[in-house]
Amino acid sequence: MGRVYNFSAGPAVLPEEVLKEAAEEMLDYRGTGMSVMEMSHRSKAYEEIIQTAEQDLRDLMNIPDNYKVLFLQGGASQQFAMIPMNLMKNGVADYIITGQWAKKAYQEAKLYGQANAIASSADKTFSYIPDCSDLPISENADYVYICENNTIYGTKYKTLPNTKGKTLVADVSSCFLSEPVDVTKYGVIYGGVQKNIGPAGVVIVIIREDLITEDVLPGTPTMLRY
Amino acid sequence: MGRVYNFSAGPAVLPEEVLKEAAEEMLDYRGTGMSVMEMSHRSKAYEEIIQTAEQDLRDLMNIPDNYKVLFLQGGASQQFAMIPMNLMKNGVADYIITGQWAKKAYQEAKLYGQANAIASSADKTFSYIPDCSDLPISENADYVYICENNTIYGTKYKTLPNTKGKTLVADVSSCFLSEPVDVTKYGVIYGGVQKNIGPAGVVIVIIREDLITEDVLPGTPTMLRY
Repeated sequence: MGRVYNFSAGPAVLPEEVLKEAAEEMLDYRGTGMSVMEMSHRSKAYEEIIQTAEQDLRDLMNIPDNYKVLFLQGGASQQFAMIPMNLMKNGVADYIITGQWAKKAYQEAKLYGQANAIASSADKTFSYIPDCSDLPISENADYVYICENNTIYGTKYKTLPNTKGKTLVADVSSCFLSEPVDVTKYGVIYGGVQKNIGPAGVVIVIIREDLITEDVLPGTPTMLRY
Repeated sequence: MGRVYNFSAGPAVLPEEVLKEAAEEMLDYRGTGMSVMEMSHRSKAYEEIIQTAEQDLRDLMNIPDNYKVLFLQGGASQQFAMIPMNLMKNGVADYIITGQWAKKAYQEAKLYGQANAIASSADKTFSYIPDCSDLPISENADYVYICENNTIYGTKYKTLPNTKGKTLVADVSSCFLSEPVDVTKYGVIYGGVQKNIGPAGVVIVIIREDLITEDVLPGTPTMLRY
């Protein structure tokens, strides 16, 4: 039996040359005498792996130096909580609801402050992206949240919302690395890697460094602070 | 160069036959035509993997049916927050401090309620396990917390603390599966798998099912609820 090309919405197919390389290095990663899975996260060999991964992403997306790149666990769903816990300084955020994932993020944010649904396409089963050129952005909104691509409904933002100067936070799980983006237009770009970048289990968060502060909501777990 | 046997305190050596099997299955897991890393978490092939993993652990540890086995992310450090967020119904927990990891768990618990250090071996650089036969367990303690094995200091509980009927929660990251245990003596047994069970990235939580409730602390992220 040959290789199957998996088109499903979840975890996606990986390049054969990558899988072959991983298989070949399984018992001895580049002369270290061990698998990547056996080495210390403080070892030189691993340090080079993670630094190269970050640099490759920085090169591909042209990520400016004042943005941090974080490789995290917990999936996009954990970001639904981490974003308000870390960014809701005023306790207010505006959400644009274009599908189930944006809705889940919005509902989670309500646990932490005033989350406003400032636009939605729920009226037509999320079959379109609302006009976002002049939305009622809250005066004290800490951020405006979007899910940039909505696989289930086949919709994608063609232009980013006019946030009227507020920080834009975008879940790009299903369009990550699929086209050139101007990172400077976002405060946070994040997504699970399982569709476009690698195997399931990692979420990448690209965040402007001034958004990373000690001033998080009370009760934010240490491991959930950017 | 031959294989290196890694004795370090962090991620440990994996069995060669396991690595070989993983390498051989990298492009085609048992005739599915794809790698494990490419398949849906809802597929039959993956369902069998996770169910077999759970059953193997249940068999090895003789885990009773009224305990759930959870495979989670975030490491033991994320459990330091999840435990109080999920179990502190009275807002009180007792901690026995036998090393840096117990201390970190204790400090994290203080974010969520009254965490009491009811015993400690900090006076002699954690070189011993305190006498835990008659500790001042708090009357309304939701649980008593220990780190069962302390690699850095070379100490391990030979007998479990007398919790006077309170739920025992134990971090067993560095002694997981190293000897027979009576699961029924614990409310929660948890640990990172990277030392004794598998590659880094997963934490296993074995939890008595009556401890899993909807009644969690306000602000507990959805993904952090047992």
